[in-house]
Amino acid sequence: MEHLIEKTIRKEKIFSGKVINVYVEEVELPNGKTSKREVVKHPGAVAVIPVTSEGKLVLVRQYRKALERVLVEIPAGKLEKGEEPLATARRELEEETGYVARSIRHLVSFYTSPGFADELIHLYVAEGLTKLEESASLDDDEFVDLLEVTLEEALVMLEKQEIYDAKTAYALQYLQLQKALKK
Amino acid sequence: MEHLIEKTIRKEKIFSGKVINVYVEEVELPNGKTSKREVVKHPGAVAVIPVTSEGKLVLVRQYRKALERVLVEIPAGKLEKGEEPLATARRELEEETGYVARSIRHLVSFYTSPGFADELIHLYVAEGLTKLEESASLDDDEFVDLLEVTLEEALVMLEKQEIYDAKTAYALQYLQLQKALKK
Repeated sequence: MEHLIEKTIRKEKIFSGKVINVYVEEVELPNGKTSKREVVKHPGAVAVIPVTSEGKLVLVRQYRKALERVLVEIPAGKLEKGEEPLATARRELEEETGYVARSIRHLVSFYTSPGFADELIHLYVAEGLTKLEESASLDDDEFVDLLEVTLEEALVMLEKQEIYDAKTAYALQYLQLQKALKK
Repeated sequence: MEHLIEKTIRKEKIFSGKVINVYVEEVELPNGKTSKREVVKHPGAVAVIPVTSEGKLVLVRQYRKALERVLVEIPAGKLEKGEEPLATARRELEEETGYVARSIRHLVSFYTSPGFADELIHLYVAEGLTKLEESASLDDDEFVDLLEVTLEEALVMLEKQEIYDAKTAYALQYLQLQKALKK
């Protein structure tokens, strides 16, 4: 793969944030010419597909400042420093939905935006859900509404662009595939 | 949804790049407190699932500087200013693979990283592919290898983390779902 690799000549840190860091890198291209790459570094995240015993999907409605709009998504959250993704998944599920899962299983991991960012999302399916009477609470800058919907209802939300993000679109397709395979 | 919305108090532009712009916004939270949001603005992109007449998937292998590694992905590219996503899809398919499609159809659009970026990807399926003898060429800072693989071969690449991004994982699941529905 040597003929594809871009070597870093110079790397400048542009921004150091709470969540992201931003770099501009000057690279040597495979043909010897140079170019610049803008790179966002992110700690990584988990997302959980919570399926209730009635086969409903537990979703969160929240405001996304980057989009200036409200989206409906599967529960998700950033990895804390040194935290195992599975532990983050259990924590975020509990904090955002008040559910704990008997079974939580890794499905797939993927980079969300390899063109400019290194955010890696680890996706889990949570089943055997039990609602806690008293659950861990959200971060103090997080505000969400909870929804429990059927797959058909979620697909209508996708059509209406209330569901409008990669991890949740993947989750809906996963549930469709499971359903098709059962038939 | 008023009870979820974060109002911008102050917005600072941190970085103005070729591809991305970065802002830090001070917001008023629904409870009246304030917080900061780091926001990456991106022009948006398209991705295309190219399916050959033999049912193979056309993939590109390329180096991703943000990840410092080579990934295998479905063809994709940024929207040019004022360009319709469908035109971008046809252009990127031709530039990256040398194929033109008889049929190219919008499947879904999704934000890739709503937690910190506004990148929206429009995903298409391209069928009825014909290889051009002389095709449009890649951007002069783009270097890719082409692969034509079966779904089964692509799933092995997903297992090995050579395929490791959201849009391509979605594409593989889409093909699995189509196959399951045909049975």
